[in-house]
Amino acid sequence: MARKIGIIGLGNVGAALAHSLICQGMAESYVFIDVSEEKSQADALDFEDAMANLKQFAHIEVNDYQALADADIVVSALGNIALQHNAGEDRFAEFPFTKLAVKEVSKRLVEVGFKGILLVITNPCDAVCALYQHYTGFPKEKVFGTGTLLDTARMKRALGKAFEVNPKSVSGYNLGEHGNSQFVAWSQVSLKGQSIMDLTTRDQREELNLAAVKGGHTVFYGKGYTSFGIAASACRLIEQILTDAKEVLPVSSYQEKFQTYLGYPAIIGRDGIVERVELNLTEEEEIKLAASAKLIKERVEAVLAE
Amino acid sequence: MARKIGIIGLGNVGAALAHSLICQGMAESYVFIDVSEEKSQADALDFEDAMANLKQFAHIEVNDYQALADADIVVSALGNIALQHNAGEDRFAEFPFTKLAVKEVSKRLVEVGFKGILLVITNPCDAVCALYQHYTGFPKEKVFGTGTLLDTARMKRALGKAFEVNPKSVSGYNLGEHGNSQFVAWSQVSLKGQSIMDLTTRDQREELNLAAVKGGHTVFYGKGYTSFGIAASACRLIEQILTDAKEVLPVSSYQEKFQTYLGYPAIIGRDGIVERVELNLTEEEEIKLAASAKLIKERVEAVLAE
Amino acid sequence: MARKIGIIGLGNVGAALAHSLICQGMAESYVFIDVSEEKSQADALDFEDAMANLKQFAHIEVNDYQALADADIVVSALGNIALQHNAGEDRFAEFPFTKLAVKEVSKRLVEVGFKGILLVITNPCDAVCALYQHYTGFPKEKVFGTGTLLDTARMKRALGKAFEVNPKSVSGYNLGEHGNSQFVAWSQVSLKGQSIMDLTTRDQREELNLAAVKGGHTVFYGKGYTSFGIAASACRLIEQILTDAKEVLPVSSYQEKFQTYLGYPAIIGRDGIVERVELNLTEEEEIKLAASAKLIKERVEAVLAE
Amino acid sequence: MARKIGIIGLGNVGAALAHSLICQGMAESYVFIDVSEEKSQADALDFEDAMANLKQFAHIEVNDYQALADADIVVSALGNIALQHNAGEDRFAEFPFTKLAVKEVSKRLVEVGFKGILLVITNPCDAVCALYQHYTGFPKEKVFGTGTLLDTARMKRALGKAFEVNPKSVSGYNLGEHGNSQFVAWSQVSLKGQSIMDLTTRDQREELNLAAVKGGHTVFYGKGYTSFGIAASACRLIEQILTDAKEVLPVSSYQEKFQTYLGYPAIIGRDGIVERVELNLTEEEEIKLAASAKLIKERVEAVLAE
Repeated sequence: MARKIGIIGLGNVGAALAHSLICQGMAESYVFIDVSEEKSQADALDFEDAMANLKQFAHIEVNDYQALADADIVVSALGNIALQHNAGEDRFAEFPFTKLAVKEVSKRLVEVGFKGILLVITNPCDAVCALYQHYTGFPKEKVFGTGTLLDTARMKRALGKAFEVNPKSVSGYNLGEHGNSQFVAWSQVSLKGQSIMDLTTRDQREELNLAAVKGGHTVFYGKGYTSFGIAASACRLIEQILTDAKEVLPVSSYQEKFQTYLGYPAIIGRDGIVERVELNLTEEEEIKLAASAKLIKERVEAVLAE
Repeated sequence: MARKIGIIGLGNVGAALAHSLICQGMAESYVFIDVSEEKSQADALDFEDAMANLKQFAHIEVNDYQALADADIVVSALGNIALQHNAGEDRFAEFPFTKLAVKEVSKRLVEVGFKGILLVITNPCDAVCALYQHYTGFPKEKVFGTGTLLDTARMKRALGKAFEVNPKSVSGYNLGEHGNSQFVAWSQVSLKGQSIMDLTTRDQREELNLAAVKGGHTVFYGKGYTSFGIAASACRLIEQILTDAKEVLPVSSYQEKFQTYLGYPAIIGRDGIVERVELNLTEEEEIKLAASAKLIKERVEAVLAE
Repeated sequence: MARKIGIIGLGNVGAALAHSLICQGMAESYVFIDVSEEKSQADALDFEDAMANLKQFAHIEVNDYQALADADIVVSALGNIALQHNAGEDRFAEFPFTKLAVKEVSKRLVEVGFKGILLVITNPCDAVCALYQHYTGFPKEKVFGTGTLLDTARMKRALGKAFEVNPKSVSGYNLGEHGNSQFVAWSQVSLKGQSIMDLTTRDQREELNLAAVKGGHTVFYGKGYTSFGIAASACRLIEQILTDAKEVLPVSSYQEKFQTYLGYPAIIGRDGIVERVELNLTEEEEIKLAASAKLIKERVEAVLAE
Repeated sequence: MARKIGIIGLGNVGAALAHSLICQGMAESYVFIDVSEEKSQADALDFEDAMANLKQFAHIEVNDYQALADADIVVSALGNIALQHNAGEDRFAEFPFTKLAVKEVSKRLVEVGFKGILLVITNPCDAVCALYQHYTGFPKEKVFGTGTLLDTARMKRALGKAFEVNPKSVSGYNLGEHGNSQFVAWSQVSLKGQSIMDLTTRDQREELNLAAVKGGHTVFYGKGYTSFGIAASACRLIEQILTDAKEVLPVSSYQEKFQTYLGYPAIIGRDGIVERVELNLTEEEEIKLAASAKLIKERVEAVLAE
């Protein structure tokens, strides 16, 4: 009956996600887990101090892995954003920290017998998905990440502004690594009934891409982290899972063809990745995708070989 | 047509409030103002990166006082939480900073001809309400603060837990200063069809009060600030105003009797404080209330005499 | 994981309830059951035609009792409103029809092994609760009805209008039969910090009661049935159950003291009636309550003796 | 500040729309207008009886055209569904009734000085839009109808079921008359990253179209009217207008090229039709569209020539 969501890591992202979920009544029961029990306890109490004034009620448990045993979804939001500062835009900057944390969390999730969906926000997202799946042995379709869903949202924001249309009315996807090697699959992008290829020159598309990427940097450098955009991405995926909604969304999912996790559209439902979607990419896009896949695969293999 | 809300101060509280409002589609249009334009810009863009995945759409303007001219509500969420650290629980610790900021903001609001409701979260909440009202000259019923609405929510959280009932099914109010001199008006508290006076001893009530207050401290010391509880309080008041809902809620409103702002129940609607409610307090409670009022009044007068 | 709600009877009330639940994303899965499979099928398809434009997704199954086996809640909304027309305001007018239908539905629910909460809207609500509990043998705390929750809402509407305050800021309950013998327990009613006993004369209270009751008649005679008010009552109870919220609400629950179902406040949670609340009624109110209980009990016994 | 929506015609559709809007807190203020004041009064009171149990508060005025003067949106939901029975699927069956009602309503709207958006559900939708625009003289971009938004939702429902994907993840439009001459513009339909043209044969598309249309018939013949699907369509358009969201949606809007109203995608915002979208239709589709336009135009001209 009750929908239960675990959030591991109550930093800026985990806490914003919890806020977003609770404000929208997305579940009845939450488990907050953080290396700092003081922080997860503080957030839990802060939400309990909101209950008298919120429209929805929810129960929160704190730092109890056992409580995750029957959770529907566990979200990995742990990270060490400090490692990202002064690291340029390379999301692998957090990997030395997260690769160890992921191993530990995986062990705990296996121990308690968690059987639900493991949704990964932790960066580098694709590589971390791969490690989680490897360490837990969970079915590949039950481990996936927010991946390029946020990059796609940024692309839609930039195009929406440029063409004065709602970002939701922009179709298309950013593919590949949730990191520097990601790219817009322009062949798939359309708006106002037209392919973007017919509406823009290559230079204009490059500018639009820059606007999308630069927005993310403005957020990161303006406040030291990003939170609301990524929380909305995760929140949407969580709703897809809980309602078995089966929308097509670009997420970091395991791609048999590349033998690695990678941002690519898939159908999301109660069982996780229900179906992989097949895009008709251009040759140039296929090359970029393969390169992005190779990069992720090598990073994961390097960790597993340690 | 469009509901427009301005938020001045995009710190932990202002940003959490914006998140809460946007997630729930509480307005169509927002204006974010912060002394750090980088911060308000970063939050605005972060929300725009959420739009493709959110259920509601909203427009955000940044650091433009002129855009507040036709706002329905302006929320003062500015503060300097660092001053609160190592200050014990005295919310006047922020006053040296906020009293100056409030003067400046007031000037700007008057300049642009703002005619809406000025909702105050900034601490010390009651004194700051008084200063805002003094500096702007706005009608007293259009300037009010979250006051003891959060303290009341904490009392309801503590009693709800103790009696295994939803905090919303606990009736009653915390009155006075949103600060150390606030108190639970036990004579007004009831749950499960019974007055709390009949259900508990004085010692038990003291323990319940401690549990309520201690919860706030756990949040503050556990994460360095409080955000979700106060955001929910402000969010509820905003909805009351926008929907002209006229619920009775304890807020910091001007009390003719005490010639100062003070946490006390009032009816909230489109025009702000629609009506003051009259409680039948005990003599002991009346004394506490008067003492709390005196404290606030003196602090405000001290500032105005500077 | 998924919240599943069954609705038996897709007449004006059942369909409005379904609409209310689906619009608010209250569950992921619904089962519509009606003696007219055409009607339940039509409503299901009509909702499916809404999915592309709704914010929430939901799955609907039609006329499959087996699908109720793992439902969290089954709502009995069946009835024959035609029997109510020209019957004055006696809700027992539908009893000759509903007493038979209830027996049949009970059999089916037992057969499929339904283990959830059975929420009764069907009139005469209290008597029907009793029959359902008798025929199914389900635990008494898992069978309850909307009872006087709607009467209470009408009382709050009338008082809210008269005193210019939100109905939610009116405390108190209508007790007894959801029918002609129900009454406002004025001793429990308060608003704006005052007992209604201090704010009004007996005549004024009688007028307020008339305004509350007359409103219901205006709805019934104006459109031939009532739907939105009762749907909101049921919807609120459903949310209480699903979120284990434990608010105190007046519902038709089994009262040991009277050996019958009766409208009286109780705490509602995941397990149904979690706790009975004890009100300090006046002697006059206790007499009315006992009379109302007696009436219900006799009607139920008459059916069981047939 | 307050968002005000007028609904003219409180039949099955108007009442379901009101329910949908109120449940979702889509506006603060409503005006219900019906030829039967008893019906609009009954619905208003029924909603007021829901307020104590609803999450949102709203104000409702009844049968007061003057109250529409400052409404943001007026929805024409009037009709005479009885005329549709035994009329096959020809939505012009209601025209003899609605063409007269529209003239009267137009007069009243002009008299009170209504300046907002006039959203038309009344059938035959496209012709009725044209009459409203003609009789009121309102700017063409401020008068538009739900048109083929419902037909499109039905197409998405049918394709979503066939391909096991969420209807929202089906792209494409039904174009033309909201009536028998409407058609799916298959050249625009895609799902799972593929054009429907590549996924299906012509016969299969014909079957999918039949499934879409037949669903509508099942609803209509199963309950005598359709309500939830059309209410969701109107509700979505209302949210687009109120939030100035600028999504691309197929609505009945004035097409310069055909000199008539017609279902075709447009960008919807605060000012109504913000921009017409240009689709690259096939020659066959262009012919169908022109034929549909011709039919509507002739019917409108026939009325205006009377």
